[in-house]
Amino acid sequence: MAEPETTEDEAFGITDRLVSDVLDAVGRGDGTYLSDVLDPMHAADVAHLLEQIDARDRRALLVAWPGGLEGEILSELDEELREEVIEQLAPSELADAVRDLESDDVVDLVEYLDDAQQEAVLDALDASDRVVVEQALTYPEESAGRHMQSELVRAPEHWTVGEAIDYLRSDVVLPEQFYHIILVDPRLKATGYVTLGRILSHPRDTPLRDLTEDTFRTFHVAQDVEEVAQAINHYHMITAPVIDDDERIVGVITIDDAMAFLEEEAEEDILRLAGISEGSLSDRVIATTKRRFPWLAVNLVTAIFASLVISLFEETIAGLVALAVLMPIVASMGGNAGTQSLTVAVRALATRDLTTANVWRVIKREVLVGLINGLIFAVVMGVVGVVWFGSPMLGVVIAVAMVINMVVAGLAGTVIPVVLEKLGVDPALASGAFVTTVTDVVGFFAFLGLAAMWLL
Amino acid sequence: MAEPETTEDEAFGITDRLVSDVLDAVGRGDGTYLSDVLDPMHAADVAHLLEQIDARDRRALLVAWPGGLEGEILSELDEELREEVIEQLAPSELADAVRDLESDDVVDLVEYLDDAQQEAVLDALDASDRVVVEQALTYPEESAGRHMQSELVRAPEHWTVGEAIDYLRSDVVLPEQFYHIILVDPRLKATGYVTLGRILSHPRDTPLRDLTEDTFRTFHVAQDVEEVAQAINHYHMITAPVIDDDERIVGVITIDDAMAFLEEEAEEDILRLAGISEGSLSDRVIATTKRRFPWLAVNLVTAIFASLVISLFEETIAGLVALAVLMPIVASMGGNAGTQSLTVAVRALATRDLTTANVWRVIKREVLVGLINGLIFAVVMGVVGVVWFGSPMLGVVIAVAMVINMVVAGLAGTVIPVVLEKLGVDPALASGAFVTTVTDVVGFFAFLGLAAMWLL
Repeated sequence: MAEPETTEDEAFGITDRLVSDVLDAVGRGDGTYLSDVLDPMHAADVAHLLEQIDARDRRALLVAWPGGLEGEILSELDEELREEVIEQLAPSELADAVRDLESDDVVDLVEYLDDAQQEAVLDALDASDRVVVEQALTYPEESAGRHMQSELVRAPEHWTVGEAIDYLRSDVVLPEQFYHIILVDPRLKATGYVTLGRILSHPRDTPLRDLTEDTFRTFHVAQDVEEVAQAINHYHMITAPVIDDDERIVGVITIDDAMAFLEEEAEEDILRLAGISEGSLSDRVIATTKRRFPWLAVNLVTAIFASLVISLFEETIAGLVALAVLMPIVASMGGNAGTQSLTVAVRALATRDLTTANVWRVIKREVLVGLINGLIFAVVMGVVGVVWFGSPMLGVVIAVAMVINMVVAGLAGTVIPVVLEKLGVDPALASGAFVTTVTDVVGFFAFLGLAAMWLL
Repeated sequence: MAEPETTEDEAFGITDRLVSDVLDAVGRGDGTYLSDVLDPMHAADVAHLLEQIDARDRRALLVAWPGGLEGEILSELDEELREEVIEQLAPSELADAVRDLESDDVVDLVEYLDDAQQEAVLDALDASDRVVVEQALTYPEESAGRHMQSELVRAPEHWTVGEAIDYLRSDVVLPEQFYHIILVDPRLKATGYVTLGRILSHPRDTPLRDLTEDTFRTFHVAQDVEEVAQAINHYHMITAPVIDDDERIVGVITIDDAMAFLEEEAEEDILRLAGISEGSLSDRVIATTKRRFPWLAVNLVTAIFASLVISLFEETIAGLVALAVLMPIVASMGGNAGTQSLTVAVRALATRDLTTANVWRVIKREVLVGLINGLIFAVVMGVVGVVWFGSPMLGVVIAVAMVINMVVAGLAGTVIPVVLEKLGVDPALASGAFVTTVTDVVGFFAFLGLAAMWLL
């Protein structure tokens, strides 16, 4: 991931130089420069640029830029920034911006707006588009129905290649991008799909039903959109057809949306594992502080809990201060080994590699790994204990405590996420606190307890 | 991410029930059952099933299953398992399996094989396919040239829709899947592309060059494939054309490959942040132990380093054992705050949200967040210190140490990944060790040092 600056700049359209040039133009209110630079730019790049600058500059830029904001740019923006930018737009500007978006992008945009803003956007849409968006908003938040685009191309299953081409060449309104034609029976039930490549490469009289893909599969509007995205990745699908209760085709989820969605999910998992719930780099200090706070508070409670364990052994420590010096090592090694196990388990649960079929094998493996690494580090630490403090028994105590804690780390690191998942609690968010509490408590208890028994 | 078992089963084709039925069939050597079940299954599902069972069952299954392994299944397998399975195949079986794969899948398969196996695969290919694969292997490992597929459809830029359709309907060999026709000038330089949807929806006499997408952009064979994948995601591209030094089109990277690639990269980042370099759930105990060991060894060194700091204050602790009870809290809170900051920084570097343009703003924010949360927890811990140990001064010491350590955590958590990235070291892998060393050392030093000055 470490590349020289120049290559990074090549990949996306935004260079540091460009950002500072744009900020200069904003500073002197140079609308012509801004139009020249920003109007031809890809919406994703403009959004990326807006994310790079701070809130004050963003406001000034939107005022100074006469071209104004297209809907595409709004779609590409970080969710938090989107709200900030939309608040700045007049209802009519907002309406202009959204009119050309695909239905799924409109839904994505309006779902978290306040009622007045939402109404302004919906009013700007054609009656038929409005119905589609309002329908999508009736599906649950993370469902396929909420995230599908309704623009798609379907054809009666008895059509031929020639009929399909004539239909596409007629004045029908086509989606911006489409890669399949979905075949439907007279009841609009989806029965298969044909790639455009196959249509183009066969004679006009070929029946479409002879060209369908055998990997065709459909998804229900109520299905979790993350599952659909994972299936798209798993089966290398470009278009995932979404059907309603009557098996009628009502929309599609396209691979580019699925890709963006999986990226966001992985991102969320990474942040959750570090104890941060959502958030982006452009958040302000107070929002960020609030997001970081809960996990730190949980950690404080678990740390105090570990301290209570230590306080049980105050007399032991008073008798041999070397124990206070060495005890964090046992807890820290257990914590790290536990984090390794739990990270593997959390990701394997997310990607469905960890299932009832192999959970026991994985637990057994993690415990064994903990045991082997524990034994190796026990020998090392035993030697350190002897050399540093000149006490063979202290070496034995730290070695045994190390083995115990690392075995427990492997066990807790796997069992805790699995149990949390079974209980319906997000293992990415909650596992860390539980696992480190276990390894801290076990680490301090084993080390100080053994010391109390064997050393004093 | 927590869904009931049944929904999970719906999304992919592999249920726990199916796994145990297949294992039963393997046990009784029932080849007919295996063929009935496995032959019609999607290659990705068969691979997923093979990943779920252990090495012995996998071997037995491959022996008992008369249909044998298609190349597609090999492509879908985890890299580690792929080697294991390939070792079991006779060269002729292996050759049969790879013959129908796209060039990028063959490259992906052979790049890590030993010379004899690689030779067997290459011998099985047509002369022209072999040239393509050997050419791809000359590009650097993580480059676009190594990962592109050479199968693509190109057309002279002066062609019309009708000429393109006639060409596609001729007996030319077409890629399995394609979504664009790439236009080239007489020197084979790529000048634009046309989606199949646009070709299908325009009259035969329309010149292709009137239908090109204005988002057309190309990537060089030597460019990092992760950058290309990120650009595909960023710009919602379906096909990324790859060109050589002479700007001639030599291949494409498709969105489904880019999606799988980004998923793997995110996965790797997650594991690296937890101190694990690669690995999968199907690895064996010894391989896993080896993968976990280096990070634990680094952690041991940093933990000993922190212990050395504590040992500077042995007399202080001997004078007031409460310090030993409370000191892990300061270190632990700093470690957690530092991990939060570094995780955000590492991801922002990976997704290019953190750049020279905003790095100072981010550092300032992280330090402020650390300060605010530090002050809050300082008050809490000050009160705990007073109530628990009845010493107001002890409360002040822990409070001040807490603020210091959490500010340092915010600073170190951001600066360390940024500096590592500048030095060309992967920040996901190395930041954790550095940051927790800093927060441990600063935490113990500040707390025990202040205690030595103010309490004794």
